Amino acid sequence: MATKERKILVAVDESEESTYALSWCLKNVVTENSKDTLVLLYVKPPHTVYSALDGTGYLFSQEILATMDKYRKDVAETVIQKAKMLCKDLQDVKVETRVEIGDPRDVICDVGEKMCVDMMVVGSHGYGLIKRAFLGSVSNHCAQNSKCPVLIVKKPKNTAANSPRT
Amino acid sequence: MATKERKILVAVDESEESTYALSWCLKNVVTENSKDTLVLLYVKPPHTVYSALDGTGYLFSQEILATMDKYRKDVAETVIQKAKMLCKDLQDVKVETRVEIGDPRDVICDVGEKMCVDMMVVGSHGYGLIKRAFLGSVSNHCAQNSKCPVLIVKKPKNTAANSPRT
Repeated sequence: MATKERKILVAVDESEESTYALSWCLKNVVTENSKDTLVLLYVKPPHTVYSALDGTGYLFSQEILATMDKYRKDVAETVIQKAKMLCKDLQDVKVETRVEIGDPRDVICDVGEKMCVDMMVVGSHGYGLIKRAFLGSVSNHCAQNSKCPVLIVKKPKNTAANSPRT
Repeated sequence: MATKERKILVAVDESEESTYALSWCLKNVVTENSKDTLVLLYVKPPHTVYSALDGTGYLFSQEILATMDKYRKDVAETVIQKAKMLCKDLQDVKVETRVEIGDPRDVICDVGEKMCVDMMVVGSHGYGLIKRAFLGSVSNHCAQNSKCPVLIVKKPKNTAANSPRT
């Protein structure tokens, strides 16, 4: 029975799938009156994904690069704030947040291993069409490479992000 | 918080990985005092996996085929009994067992969908080297094709089958 203290890593990002996965986890995995620790991890894509060169081969100006950095920082803050909001009703559960930079596939597995989490939760196809083309499927990668159990949560079609089925 | 009645499908087979996955699920997912229903599903490989022809092209005798059928039936019973034994301490949780015949990859997804389960649990690499060569990775297939959340439990190296880490 689920009574032990567990450390659960939830990968969060700006997608609806990620929001659904976190909500589902809160309703189905996090145990009432437990001393679980929930680690909300957002991984910022590395700077090189956007590339320092535009399509015509010219270097982006410092101004544009600074704007892009600001945007990335804002996205990270928004994602983490939204995830924390979803967790606001948890009582005994400790919520930690982390923002890392890198390829989400590797960073999620690395952080999970380093923090010795008992389980990780990832939304299926949580990185959108364009990013997935760059990054591949995060959930597949984690399922194959993580050393701990991986829960892959798929958002059913036509379901509001905040309303998991159960 | 995990307080709702949930239907959780656990794919079981004769492997240590499967036993570990079920034990892990019992300790980490099944909620104390819940009204969860646990469905233990064993999928017998289809007859054609063994083939009616031996290596030299001769048909197996009726006697051999009958022996193989008996063996398959015995394995199914042993797997289900062992899985039920692991669940014997559950109090409010209802335990159902099912034995189906077919390709485990498809059958697990089909049964999950037909029974409208809230979650399925599969051991990683739970089908052994030889069967995996025939059947491919069951956990990968379920993660990609199941419509409900899939928990993939990987047995850590050098861990006894009945002793999940947490």
